[in-house]
Order: sequence, then structure tokens, then C-alpha cells
Amino acid sequence: MTVLILTNDEDVTADMVVVHLNTSGVPVVRLDPADLTYSVALSGEFVHGSFRGHLSSGGRLVSIGGLRSVWLRRPGGPATRAAEPSAWLTEESGQALYGLLRGSGARWMNQPDAAHRARYKPWQLRVAQRCGLPVPATLITTFPRAAREFAERYPDLVVKPVSGVHPQDPPLAVPTSRVPPEADFSSVAHGPTLLQRRIAKRADIRLTAVGDELLAARKATSAEVDPDDVDVRFAESAEPWRPTEVPPRVAESVRSYLTAAGLAYGALDFAEDGDGIWWFLECNQSGQFGFVEVDTGLPIARTIAEWLARPRSEDPVGSGRPDTTAVS
Amino acid sequence: MTVLILTNDEDVTADMVVVHLNTSGVPVVRLDPADLTYSVALSGEFVHGSFRGHLSSGGRLVSIGGLRSVWLRRPGGPATRAAEPSAWLTEESGQALYGLLRGSGARWMNQPDAAHRARYKPWQLRVAQRCGLPVPATLITTFPRAAREFAERYPDLVVKPVSGVHPQDPPLAVPTSRVPPEADFSSVAHGPTLLQRRIAKRADIRLTAVGDELLAARKATSAEVDPDDVDVRFAESAEPWRPTEVPPRVAESVRSYLTAAGLAYGALDFAEDGDGIWWFLECNQSGQFGFVEVDTGLPIARTIAEWLARPRSEDPVGSGRPDTTAVS
Repeated sequence: MTVLILTNDEDVTADMVVVHLNTSGVPVVRLDPADLTYSVALSGEFVHGSFRGHLSSGGRLVSIGGLRSVWLRRPGGPATRAAEPSAWLTEESGQALYGLLRGSGARWMNQPDAAHRARYKPWQLRVAQRCGLPVPATLITTFPRAAREFAERYPDLVVKPVSGVHPQDPPLAVPTSRVPPEADFSSVAHGPTLLQRRIAKRADIRLTAVGDELLAARKATSAEVDPDDVDVRFAESAEPWRPTEVPPRVAESVRSYLTAAGLAYGALDFAEDGDGIWWFLECNQSGQFGFVEVDTGLPIARTIAEWLARPRSEDPVGSGRPDTTAVS
Repeated sequence: MTVLILTNDEDVTADMVVVHLNTSGVPVVRLDPADLTYSVALSGEFVHGSFRGHLSSGGRLVSIGGLRSVWLRRPGGPATRAAEPSAWLTEESGQALYGLLRGSGARWMNQPDAAHRARYKPWQLRVAQRCGLPVPATLITTFPRAAREFAERYPDLVVKPVSGVHPQDPPLAVPTSRVPPEADFSSVAHGPTLLQRRIAKRADIRLTAVGDELLAARKATSAEVDPDDVDVRFAESAEPWRPTEVPPRVAESVRSYLTAAGLAYGALDFAEDGDGIWWFLECNQSGQFGFVEVDTGLPIARTIAEWLARPRSEDPVGSGRPDTTAVS
């Protein structure tokens, strides 16, 4: 049984996982859907109620029914590197590839519909709260008056994107910023704005969840840091990421979150306040983990490799349920 | 409780439904997400574990928590008619609007994740077969040799798009065509091709499913029709669409299909063969129904209006389950 990794050629983080799979002798096929009809080919025949099919990449053939897991990492757009690319060819190739893979019976990290749904920030906040994770008061609005009233009730606010990452090439991470006092909210009318009560934090937490395994890192807030630098991705800091324990009640809530979201992988960000409370900020279902592993030595790549290598029958979090379950 | 209709301004078919809702005195707000930040505004505040929010359109305010149903019909891209449109603004606006609506508790026709999943043709064929609907042998391939071998086993084939509709503006419906004998399949290597055993049909069936209600129309195949004209959308025909009964076992299978797919609405196409068997061809979750209603007098628009107008508590097919169910 083969592990299929769908990602682009530049994805060096995926290499970290492939090394572990190779070491344990698990067959791996890595391909980029962008190469469809160029160096990647597919075929599936519908017989006896299911598709039987194959993928070939660089001359190597793999049976779709013989896949044990699919890692949907950072794939390119289907057929975008074909000889004559077009929106139509991309649509046809995406429907064919993902349509066939959806019936493979393989376990997904992450299942495409679950991954899509998990990106909605309002959805994340509701699920987090329901699973017992504390969530700061949040407003999403295009009404300047609603923004002003929210700022009166919560004078210490941050502003961040609703959607995450700016879709330019290369994608641009938009930093979370502190809202200055007496801010003018009139520009809110031009685009939805997410305002959130700022957590006075003593540390950032990055919790990487792989199936049931939780690997957490903590970066203490430097005493000398400018309190306006709220986004750990952009603030300079003398403090390193260090491995940290996950409090048992948080662990329970995070596992509930992943089950509710149908995710096998998630990178969760928390702000730890002065009382040690971990406030849920977001869960990125495709969040990077390379920098955490490099800084902390946490065995994230190995844990992912172990999840992908597991036989189908063990059916862990986020794995394939029968594909006739109603979504919600 | 209000019915929210998300569609573009040119959608006259939606007007047919609005007329029925107006007649029965059900409040309706119709808006196009393309008008976000221009004439459409939104606001949602996360308090006590859920978002409380509002939409405004043309100065009219509606509570998101007070929506009884959402008809996701043919909406424009979010904020594409804003003063300064951009991919970023569309992404932010889509995340904000659909993120808030996902938590509304309203019943959806159709729920967005279910609608997305339901478009995959290979997925459709598997689900149809599992629900007891007969499906013709089908091949999706980029291997010319696989296409040739399939054509040897099934000499009478049609070719059709994998994905449905060509994404040009206006979108182009690509006709299903008969494959000539001695066809050269070498071009299959350039793009995924769907080949299907041709059903020698005596009629086309269009079954429009609205919740539990099934409204079927039948168009007999004219004796003088060219057998190469396999696509009823493009072939000239003297035969009209007429209402027809749904065989009880087919009805049972179609209801199973909708339940499995999580759909409240579907337009299913069948080919009726000489033995009266209805062969499943596809289920379009956003298929048009205006032409069927006009030709046959089947009360499709009224049935949709009744579904949308139903109170939340009745919880029919495709309605909102708790939004923490794993997708598959």
C-alpha cells in the first residue's frame, strides 16, 4: 500500500516527511497535480459500483485502490504546467483527479471538503468555543458604527484578515496589528474587517496536531518587546520556540476540535495570558511545521510519516468515513 | 423568519420562486454577494459561543440568526462589483459572508460543502450505484491505450466533459457526443476524457428533486432523430417534455441519493432504454428548472418556495445538521 503526497516541487517540508517514510520502507509516490497530462497521467474505470484506476507519474504506475493514505499538502493547480494550459483543462483535470481519489478508500490528511470548511474563521471560532477553548470577543463587519461600538466596549483591539493569506504570488501573510486608540473606522465600509480583543500575552503557543498526537511549542514574550508587535511571525524576539506540555483539558478540547472538523492535521495558534489561559486564535489546517521542528526538535515530520504509514483499518481521526455521509 | 436568496440580478428563474413566497407572505431578502461593500453590508459579533449578526441590502436589514433558509442559487463572486474589486477583497468578503451564514442555523438549499462535493462526476456515479440506480460503464482517462481497450469492449460510446460546464463567460455547455467507430484516441493524452457506454434510449428523463418531492419530465426520442444527436439539450426534437410518474423503486433510490449527498435540491438526468430502465447520467445540484416548468406545468418553483418557507424545526433532507459533523 502506497502513500500519495500531492504537493509542489519546491515543498522542502514534505521532503522531511518523505525521509522518514523511506527509512521505514513505506512506498511513496509524490506528484504535483500541476504536471497532469505533462508527466502525470490518470485513468479510472467504473465497474461493479466503484472506480478502479491508476495514476502514473514519471513513468511509475500506482493503483488508486492501493493507496493507504493521501497527503494533500501544497499541490499546484491541476494541469497548470500542461503544454496548453487553460481554465477548462484545469477544471477537467481537477474533477478527474480528485473525483477518482475521493473514491480511493484511502485515509486523507486532510480530506478536501473538511479542509475547505476548516478555513472559515467564523466557523473556527464557534467550533473552538463549543469544544471548550476560550475565544476572545471578535467582530467581523463592514459597518463603521458597529466597529466603533465594539471598540468602545473593548478598547484594546487587534485587527487581522478574515481569510488568512493574501492571494498574491508568492502569497503574502498579512500581519495582525494593534488598533490605535481613536482609530477611524470609516474604511471598514470598503471591506470586511476582523477586530478581536487583544490578549495581553506572556507567550505564543503553536500546537501541531497530527491525528491524536499533540506537539506544542511555546515562545515567551520578551520583556522588552514593543506591545504593538502582536504578531509573532513578524516581531523580532530573542526568545526561542521551546517544546511545552499541553494542559490535559486543552488537549481534550483540541482533540474534540479536530474530530468535529474532520481534520487529521491542524496547526493551532494560541495566546497564553498572565493566568496561563490558552486563548484560541486560529487553526490552520495546512499550517507550516518546519520552523517549529527546526527550532524545538519536536518530531513533527516523523509523527506525520507514522500517521500516513498506518494501515487503512486503524481508522484514526479525520480518516475516510463512507463517502455518503451528509456534510454540514 | 426570512428567506435569503443569494443569486445574480439576471436570474429570472429565481423570480418565479419569489412570486410564490410573496404570495404566501413569507419575508424574502434577495441579494448578490457581488454587491458586497457596494450596496450590501454585513456585521457579525462573536458572543457567548455564536455569532450574532446582520446583513443589509439596499438599506434593508436582516438578522442572520433570523433566517429560516438560504437558497444558494447563482450568486456572483463576492465583492466583484465593489468600487475597487480585487482577489483579496473577494476572498475576505467570501470568508466573511459565508463564514457568518454557516453559523446561521438556517436550512440550506444547498449547503455549500455538499454542493461542492456533489459536482464530482466519479463521486456521483459511485453514490448513484450504491443507492440502486443503474449506471452505464464509464471510463475517465488520459491513457490512449485505456480508451482504445474500453472502446473495444463497448463499441458504442459517448464522450462528455468530466466537469460539466466550460468556464467561459457566458459559460458554455459542452455537448455529449457519440464516438465514431475507428476513433483515434491519441488526443486523450492531452486532457482527461470521459467515455461512457451509450444507452440506446427511447426517452430522456429530467427529474427535479426538491426535498422529498420528485417532479419528473419525460421527452420521448423522436423516431426520425439522428442517432448521433445524443444530447437532448442540443438536438432538435418535435417531442415536448411531458410530466411523468417516477417508478417507486427509482423514487426510493433518488431519495437515498439526496440524503447521501446532503442535497435539498437536485436535477437528475436519466436515459430511459427500450426496457423502460432509467439509467443515471448525472445529478446537477444547481440545474435549471425553468424550462421544465414552462414546458410541463410541473409546479417546481412553488415546491421550492414551500421548501424554503418551511420553519426550521421540520429538518427535511439536506437541512443544517449541527455544524460539527465530520465531512467525508
